[in-house]
Amino acid sequence: MPTYTAPVRDTRFVLEQVIGLPELAGKPGFEALEADMIEPILEEAGRFFAEVVAPTNLPADKEGCTRHEDGTVTTPAGFKAMYEQVRDAGWTTLAMPVERGGQGLPGVLSFAVEEFMTSANMAFGMYFGLTSGAIEAIEARASDELRALYVPKMASGQWTGTMNLTEPHAGTDLGLLRTRAEPNGDGSFAVTGTKIFISSGEHDLTENIIHLVLARTPDAPKGVKGISMFIVPKFIPDADGNPGQRNSLSCGSIEEKMGIHANATCVMNYDGATGWLVGDENKGLAAMFIMMNAARLWVGLQGYSQAENAYQNGAAYALDRRQGRALTGPTEPGEIADQLIVHPDVRRLLLDSRARVEGMRALGLWVALQADLSRHGSEEDRAKADDMVQLLTPIVKAIGTDIGMRVACDMQQVWGGHGYIAENGMEQFVRDARITQIYEGANGVQAMDLVGRKLAMHGGRAIQTFFGMVDKEIAAAGEDERFATLKGALAKANGELKAASMWLMQNGPANPNNIGSAAYHYMEILGLVSMGWMWLRSAKSAASALADGADDAGFMEAKLITARHFAESHLPEAGALRRKLEAGAATVMEMPAEAFARNG
Amino acid sequence: MPTYTAPVRDTRFVLEQVIGLPELAGKPGFEALEADMIEPILEEAGRFFAEVVAPTNLPADKEGCTRHEDGTVTTPAGFKAMYEQVRDAGWTTLAMPVERGGQGLPGVLSFAVEEFMTSANMAFGMYFGLTSGAIEAIEARASDELRALYVPKMASGQWTGTMNLTEPHAGTDLGLLRTRAEPNGDGSFAVTGTKIFISSGEHDLTENIIHLVLARTPDAPKGVKGISMFIVPKFIPDADGNPGQRNSLSCGSIEEKMGIHANATCVMNYDGATGWLVGDENKGLAAMFIMMNAARLWVGLQGYSQAENAYQNGAAYALDRRQGRALTGPTEPGEIADQLIVHPDVRRLLLDSRARVEGMRALGLWVALQADLSRHGSEEDRAKADDMVQLLTPIVKAIGTDIGMRVACDMQQVWGGHGYIAENGMEQFVRDARITQIYEGANGVQAMDLVGRKLAMHGGRAIQTFFGMVDKEIAAAGEDERFATLKGALAKANGELKAASMWLMQNGPANPNNIGSAAYHYMEILGLVSMGWMWLRSAKSAASALADGADDAGFMEAKLITARHFAESHLPEAGALRRKLEAGAATVMEMPAEAFARNG
Repeated sequence: MPTYTAPVRDTRFVLEQVIGLPELAGKPGFEALEADMIEPILEEAGRFFAEVVAPTNLPADKEGCTRHEDGTVTTPAGFKAMYEQVRDAGWTTLAMPVERGGQGLPGVLSFAVEEFMTSANMAFGMYFGLTSGAIEAIEARASDELRALYVPKMASGQWTGTMNLTEPHAGTDLGLLRTRAEPNGDGSFAVTGTKIFISSGEHDLTENIIHLVLARTPDAPKGVKGISMFIVPKFIPDADGNPGQRNSLSCGSIEEKMGIHANATCVMNYDGATGWLVGDENKGLAAMFIMMNAARLWVGLQGYSQAENAYQNGAAYALDRRQGRALTGPTEPGEIADQLIVHPDVRRLLLDSRARVEGMRALGLWVALQADLSRHGSEEDRAKADDMVQLLTPIVKAIGTDIGMRVACDMQQVWGGHGYIAENGMEQFVRDARITQIYEGANGVQAMDLVGRKLAMHGGRAIQTFFGMVDKEIAAAGEDERFATLKGALAKANGELKAASMWLMQNGPANPNNIGSAAYHYMEILGLVSMGWMWLRSAKSAASALADGADDAGFMEAKLITARHFAESHLPEAGALRRKLEAGAATVMEMPAEAFARNG
Repeated sequence: MPTYTAPVRDTRFVLEQVIGLPELAGKPGFEALEADMIEPILEEAGRFFAEVVAPTNLPADKEGCTRHEDGTVTTPAGFKAMYEQVRDAGWTTLAMPVERGGQGLPGVLSFAVEEFMTSANMAFGMYFGLTSGAIEAIEARASDELRALYVPKMASGQWTGTMNLTEPHAGTDLGLLRTRAEPNGDGSFAVTGTKIFISSGEHDLTENIIHLVLARTPDAPKGVKGISMFIVPKFIPDADGNPGQRNSLSCGSIEEKMGIHANATCVMNYDGATGWLVGDENKGLAAMFIMMNAARLWVGLQGYSQAENAYQNGAAYALDRRQGRALTGPTEPGEIADQLIVHPDVRRLLLDSRARVEGMRALGLWVALQADLSRHGSEEDRAKADDMVQLLTPIVKAIGTDIGMRVACDMQQVWGGHGYIAENGMEQFVRDARITQIYEGANGVQAMDLVGRKLAMHGGRAIQTFFGMVDKEIAAAGEDERFATLKGALAKANGELKAASMWLMQNGPANPNNIGSAAYHYMEILGLVSMGWMWLRSAKSAASALADGADDAGFMEAKLITARHFAESHLPEAGALRRKLEAGAATVMEMPAEAFARNG
């Protein structure tokens, strides 16, 4: 069975030495933060999720969720007690406002803790994860009455939340959805329709489940302009706000899927269920996007959280398993064979994985910090922070999850045949990571969001700011030979990104298909540059720490080596991606649609 | 549920118009082949495997194999009848010698048919696939008596064969294996030990199972020089050659694994089981390599066979499912939405997949033809053909299976959330394809085989021949603008390959770790160039066919478009791979082993 240790050291390095969280303590929006809190919070969270939650990952996946004939769903053994432990320890309310019973700490700290929970058991973490997003949407759009009724119990974890978007014929294209909501005359609506792929749609962890459902009111305009959002609780709160009458909605079935078996993915049937409008009629999509944008960062975290756990177990196996001898002669002649880790190709896989996971963790935490900063300070500072959140959310989501799958596969590969055996747990990381590339907007949709919307925002302001930050970082890097390779490779990759941006500006307007064919390649280049930028910041911080006589010199040296590996083995891809992008849409669009089918 | 159509048209194109099989009819080694046989054999095989076998793929995976308390194993419902149908139709004896009851046709034709079987149901095809390799090893090394006793019944499919190499502590490093074989004094040996990951190790399809087992005789030298190969039958043939006494071996358990659930992957316990030496004592590894080399090509085929099936279902979904509108405006305003296939990013995934599958099929068939040619003709011709088989077997195995996994994932992605649901079958392609990258020598081991052994053979003769072939093809391509892009991109990629080869010659001898760190990158470049070379040959053939007024112009046009896509979107990777390779081993080797572990 895999074992998991929370990467507290690395997370502290990013928060404390790369993105400067301690210096923000006490400033607007960071009033509850004290610099010396970071370590004990991470240590305690890390210990809890590693010791209590991680051991459940494999058995819970094997057991899965069970739907009973009456439509109720039982989660795997131990989940309910564990849910209550997490809730009571307050791990999911770190960043909630004090007035909502939370601890008022910055979101970035909560984001760091969520990684530990998600690495430990992704399917379990999902019961909490969607609730946070649902709260954000309700807080932002719902009436005071609805907020007062629902938010406190959701914030405390007493109730959970879900997102109900997808219908059988309506996935990415929400304009096609058919679920309807008819006014009951008392301010409530009767919601009728079928929603699919509803994560945590039904379970036995809490006394109530609050569904946020997209539906159409009578006479709503067609397409996405006619979608409204409704709160549809499993039990309708009574006069005291306690769960009252059972609403007419039910879990019709649990999907049998590739992974995340411990999370109940439900078909939800709404049969005139009572719901209340959140925000304005026909403005449901915008409300749902509040939830979705937060969820997208969190799905990116899911991706690299699985990569982290897979990496740890790949590295542990490479240090434990002995096969063959080093190419330069036996390193341990007295043993039956050398450790796997003597083989350069195994080291390549491990260092690739480490460069990906640590680079993406740093980027994810930096973006989470920008989300905090976007809520405080001057209008200009807030706009700049928000620009970065907007621009890089698709990167964290799509590249973070592509990394999740890639690293999970590479680490399974290190285990050889043993990696294919279920009881060793390496194959579960692959199956679980796989969904993260698909849900909350498939990664191809993220690419279109980036290239079709985010680049164009405010006349390209965000990407220009980004270029400026990268150029400034390179210019300020100095002549330290320990990151000279990285500096050069990053400058080159940033040049490819600028050229790709220029190509899009020149070739997109005339033929929008050029935007579509370029989107994924562009996203991958931006992913490389943004991770490379975090690696340069990390390398500089590590070099400074060494110069200051850091007592964990080994950790800092490993940072510098991994940064160089990212420069040597990852950043060169930017050039090839640009060449692919610049080929344009002509070839992909030339193929007649029917020619794609095999007819024998 | 996925549907499968055998790609007969494309297979015929490769055999008849690219690699020139019809022209070989009647020549030495191809005596039984008549040019007009190719089409009806492929048509009939394609029909059979698509109609009869493919529909079993999903339900058989779900049902899996069952081991009973007495150690017997039941395969999924219908397998036994289907096994007999395949056997009786002669689909697995196409290339066996007439004197063994086969049809004496070239191996390349059989290889083409094996793809159809494997696409239709990979786990089912494995019950046959390993038998072929076992026969090859027995034919090549065993005594006349053993050959007479075992080969006819294995060739006819009356008995199946297995490979028993791996032990719990000995995977890639077979030198560590401990299974022992002690002489019984009557010429037989008593074999004792535990073997793991034995595909088709126990089942109910045939009356006997013939295990080829690697073991050590008493006083055998340590390491790989002390390994011998034994035939260990489940039932010891009696005086008439019929299954007699039950041998003391048993299936201890079936592994629970990520995929190929319909194939029984067994832990095999040998408890003084009676076995007979195959070939010379202590020469077992060489004997096993006869089996393994054939098996490696077949595993490459497994990879792209899954890619083919996944591609077909990805394309079908993209033509059927409607979400969103084309970027250039609705293509079918009267429908609720446009087909997925209007989106350039979906087309990119489909065309990538098609370029990979068709390019690798062409390469796989060409290498299979070289294996035929290596057995006939002048010594020089045979050596040249064998060189190509040796050099490119790691490419077909490793790149063919990397393609299998990549395409299976990309096509699952086209299905979105529906691709993650088991009953739609797309996730099974991913789970099944995944093992092909791992078994028969993990892909990293293939890279070391290529770079450490194959490049050096006969002073680099094989790679020099290869360069010559590619250069000649480019030079002969002429100025046809329909493949001008491909010609240029291939010349550039071949230049990268030459430079990478030079780098290895200059940097390998001084530091063998440079060979290890470069191996996978080098293999990927060679994979791109060899597929690009097949694409150039394919494009030329398609252009010729169009000039000759081909009646399936659409097929030929699609070839030309796909060839250009390979040039624009795949070959550019060669340059980035070379840059990674030339970074050398310094960085990956610098990291101290213990620094790879996460300690919090």
